[in-house]
This record gives sequence, structure tokens and C-alpha cells, in this order.
Amino acid sequence: MQGWQFTKTHEPLQLVEVADPVAAAGQVVIDIKASGLCHTDVTIIDDPGWMDLIQPPVILGHECAGVIASVGTGVTKFKPGDRVGVCPIDPDTQVSIGGVVDGAYANKLVVPQTELIPLPDNVSFIDGAAATDAGMTSHRAIFGVGGAKAGMKVGIVGIGGIGDFGAQLAIAAGCDVYAADPKPAAKKMAEAMGCKGIFNDVSEMKDIAPDLIVDFAGFDSTTSHALSVVAPGGKVVVVGMGILHSTISTWDLIMKRAQVVGSMGGDSSDIAFCYDALSKGQVKPTLSTIDFSKIDEGLETLRQGGVTGRLIATQD
Amino acid sequence: MQGWQFTKTHEPLQLVEVADPVAAAGQVVIDIKASGLCHTDVTIIDDPGWMDLIQPPVILGHECAGVIASVGTGVTKFKPGDRVGVCPIDPDTQVSIGGVVDGAYANKLVVPQTELIPLPDNVSFIDGAAATDAGMTSHRAIFGVGGAKAGMKVGIVGIGGIGDFGAQLAIAAGCDVYAADPKPAAKKMAEAMGCKGIFNDVSEMKDIAPDLIVDFAGFDSTTSHALSVVAPGGKVVVVGMGILHSTISTWDLIMKRAQVVGSMGGDSSDIAFCYDALSKGQVKPTLSTIDFSKIDEGLETLRQGGVTGRLIATQD
Repeated sequence: MQGWQFTKTHEPLQLVEVADPVAAAGQVVIDIKASGLCHTDVTIIDDPGWMDLIQPPVILGHECAGVIASVGTGVTKFKPGDRVGVCPIDPDTQVSIGGVVDGAYANKLVVPQTELIPLPDNVSFIDGAAATDAGMTSHRAIFGVGGAKAGMKVGIVGIGGIGDFGAQLAIAAGCDVYAADPKPAAKKMAEAMGCKGIFNDVSEMKDIAPDLIVDFAGFDSTTSHALSVVAPGGKVVVVGMGILHSTISTWDLIMKRAQVVGSMGGDSSDIAFCYDALSKGQVKPTLSTIDFSKIDEGLETLRQGGVTGRLIATQD
Repeated sequence: MQGWQFTKTHEPLQLVEVADPVAAAGQVVIDIKASGLCHTDVTIIDDPGWMDLIQPPVILGHECAGVIASVGTGVTKFKPGDRVGVCPIDPDTQVSIGGVVDGAYANKLVVPQTELIPLPDNVSFIDGAAATDAGMTSHRAIFGVGGAKAGMKVGIVGIGGIGDFGAQLAIAAGCDVYAADPKPAAKKMAEAMGCKGIFNDVSEMKDIAPDLIVDFAGFDSTTSHALSVVAPGGKVVVVGMGILHSTISTWDLIMKRAQVVGSMGGDSSDIAFCYDALSKGQVKPTLSTIDFSKIDEGLETLRQGGVTGRLIATQD
């Protein structure tokens, strides 16, 4: 099979030929149909800081859906032909695909059955792929960590692939959602999904004072501005890693008895929630597609900021 | 009566003669016996940023215990002669004594009965005063916000008046407590109370990786270092306002799914908990005393860093 392999920082991914994976006991091999391109993969290539967490040479990609090709012994809940999404994190070992072990920028993928989520028949592989990271990560941050509930005022910073999915989930859950993103295309998406207010910068949410703000950008000022406008007793959840630090006002933190909390990833339950919302038509993530053979070009487009919503690589 | 009045930033407090307070309906007048000197009062005098929260001219002081002198109509739970501590924050209005309304650097104080906590007979006015802010604030931060429980590893940054009280409460609760404070006198206190480890800087707790770290100093690096050494999933509670910002690593925050949370004040339930611990002999806060007439000198000693534990002004 073919896969897009990472070897070291600043080296573009190479499309290489490797042996087809084989399912050991408890594992399945999946024919991948759709793989989401995530900004994390751009930073893995660009930022040497990631090398501590990556074991190259390794095929990147951690967001996918496909069809089960074969199963190892002891696999009872799934069979060849089943449509599935893949949770990128092994619930037992916490090992991630597309970093420590080979990932989803490939024709095939081998994972433990514990990472699989059944994909409803009326949910496409493309949507199904996006839900495994963009959906999972945003659901965990907004609901699991953020505690969003119907009627809450929720600020979403960054309407990219993850923020788009998350903002739609929050609106579907009955939250009043306010978006901050300077990009015109992102503003358009926020308007189309029904955000109650759309701003360039989260600091403009001062009069709204959201109960919860989720920062999917993470560019220092996005986090500090979020803390400055969040309601007393409110929570700022940080997901984005645009810049790896933030200078926050401890005056705001203490006087408001506010919280700044990190969120990363999620698990199968978050993805199952997203599949249910997709199946019911409650969310329609903004997605565009390219062919599997053009993943390198797609990552470059992502690097240049040329992607609106999520870009998904497809293959037959 | 006499009271130490604040008029504006950089002006030392003046001992002034004012009319005795009178108890309106639901209020009591207290003959103050002991008033704790808090570093907040030094910063109120030194830092113009506080003027937004203060309504001068006002008698400062927000930590006291005494004896009820008279009660207004409708006061049923307390009577003249009762020994009481005073919660500095009105539970109904959130107004604080010694800032918005006249406070405890005075011979007498008028407060709503809802701010009173009965002082056990075997707890001194001096201990009883310290418990109303140093005790309340540290109990709320460590237990209410921090969620400390028996067996947890708890880091305490800053063994001053508040940190001393809090660290002792945590040890009494069965936590393994580690202290960080560069001052030799503070280190001695930490050793005497039974801390498991004593360090200059919280960054030296790396191998311990506390589940909870409470930063009673708040000097930027104390908060960021606490986040860098706290356990995965751990919590950093910020109480101290030494510097009003901190540059934190969002990498640490996200990768550890950690929390940075502000805590301020508390309520009568926190003080009642402290009175119980004092009454049972579980905590012995480090206290020194001066006469009421020397509160201005005491605040100067506090400003110069010359106080170990809590300094309490007494009067007959």
C-alpha cells in the first residue's frame, strides 16, 4: 500500500510504498476512504518541538473513516465490510495514530477494535472522518471540559475545521453561540450556522460576557482576551496551539474566580455523539475534498491559510 | 471611637476619631479585640489600581474577632457578650468591610448578623481573627476550589500568613504537603508543621508532580512554574497578587489537560471549618501581635517583608 511518510522536521511528507498491515489479535485492518488534513500535521512538519512526541519514520494522519477489510482473532464486535470511524487515540495505551504509529494518510490502517466507532449508513465517509478529530476535539472541549448546556452563552474563538464543527454542535445543543475570527470566509460560516454575534477578536465580546469561551486558535492574545471578557465564575478552555504560551491577567483570574483549562483530544464517546448529530442532520460541517494523491499539496494549502472548514483527502 | 482611615494611594493611614457605629435592623456592633494585618492593605495603600474597588475615606482592616456590644432589631441568633469572628464579605451584597465600608482597624465595627461566626470558647481572639481571612481564604482555595482530599499531594507556594494557615489545614486533612518559599523563617515554619518537602521555588517540585498547587504568592513565575510541575489533569489555584499577570505555557496546559483557577475570599462556612480545626488543636497558625495603636508601623513592617506568619493588632 501507499502512505505519506514523515521523516524529520522541515522535510515534506513523501508518498512511499510499504507492506500492507496485518491484523493481529484484537485488531482490524481498514480500507481508508476519507482522511482529514489537520493543522497539527503542518506543525509536526514545521516545528522541531514536536519531535519528542513523534516516532519517525511514520505515516501521518489521525482523522479517518473507512470500511473494515479484515479482522484479527478475538474481534467480535466488527466484521469485514462494516463502515467505521477511527478514534485517533488508543483508549488503553493513549498512543495516537499518525505520530507514534502509522496513521491515516495511507490506503490502509491497522488499529485495535477498541478505537472503532460504527459509522451510521446516512453519514458519509467524509463527514465521518471529520468527526473523529475535529468533531471529537471540539465536542470534548465544549461539552466535556467546558460543560456547555442549553441556554449558556458560549464564545468560540477560531471558526476553522474544529471551531466550525464545535460551534454547530453548541448551537444544536441550544447554546447562544458567539464567534470570533478575523477571516471573511470564517465569518460567513459563522453567520450561516446561526451564531448570535460575530467578531474579529474575542475582546469584542466584553458586553456579552460569555459563560464559556473555547479558544480553538491559541494565539496568546486570544486566550488572554477570552479571560478578560468571560463572565465571573466563567471558564476559558484552550485547545489551539498557535503560540505555545499566553500572558494572562491573574487579576481577572482571581477577581472573577475564573478558570483557564486545557483540553486535548477526546474519546470514542465524543465521536459517537458527533455521528448521532450528523445522522440527525443537526450539524453540517464545512468540508472540501482533494484526492489522496495530493495530500502534500493540501497540507501546503492549509499552511498558507487557504482552507475554509476542513479539507478531506478521499480515495476509492 | 478611633479607626485607621485610608484616604488615597501612597498616603499612610491616619488614626482618626469618628462617631461610634449604631446597629440598624439585622446588624450588630462589635467591640473588636483582634485585627489581622493583611498584605492586601499594603497594596491598597501602594497601588492606585485598587482605587476602583475602594470607597475612601474608609477605615481599612478586614480580619477580626471580638465581642458583641449591641444588637439591632431582628437579631435573634446573637446577643451582647457573644464572642464572634466576622466574615469580611457580606453574603447578600458581596460588599467587603475595610474597603467599601469601614473595617476592622477600629475599636468598633458594625456588620449584618449574617457575617458573624460564633467563636469557640477555647479559641483566642487572635487566632479567631486570623481565621476570618487567612483561614477563610486558604480553606476556600485549597479545599473549596482546589478540591484537596486525604492522600493528595498538595504544593503550597508562599508560607506567609495565608499559606501557613492553609498548609496546616491541608496537613490536618491528611494531604502530603510540599512547600515552596525562599525565606528561611518560612522554611522553618514549613518544617515545624510537617511538610514532606520544602523548596525555594515550586519548580523544584518537578519529581513530586503535585495533584494540586495553590499559589499564595502570585509572582508570575510562581504560577507558570506551578503549571509546569503539576501532575497531568492537575490544578493550579492562584490566590496571590504579587504581580497581576503570568505568562503560562499553553503547551503544559493543553498537554496535561491542566487547570489554572482563580480563588478569592470565601464565606462563613470556611471560617467555621477553621474555628473547628483551631478548637480541636489541629492547626496552630504562626501569629505575632502589636498594639492597636501601632497598626501603621505594623503595615510598614509587613511592606518590608519583616513579618513571619500573621501579624495581629490587639486591643482590650
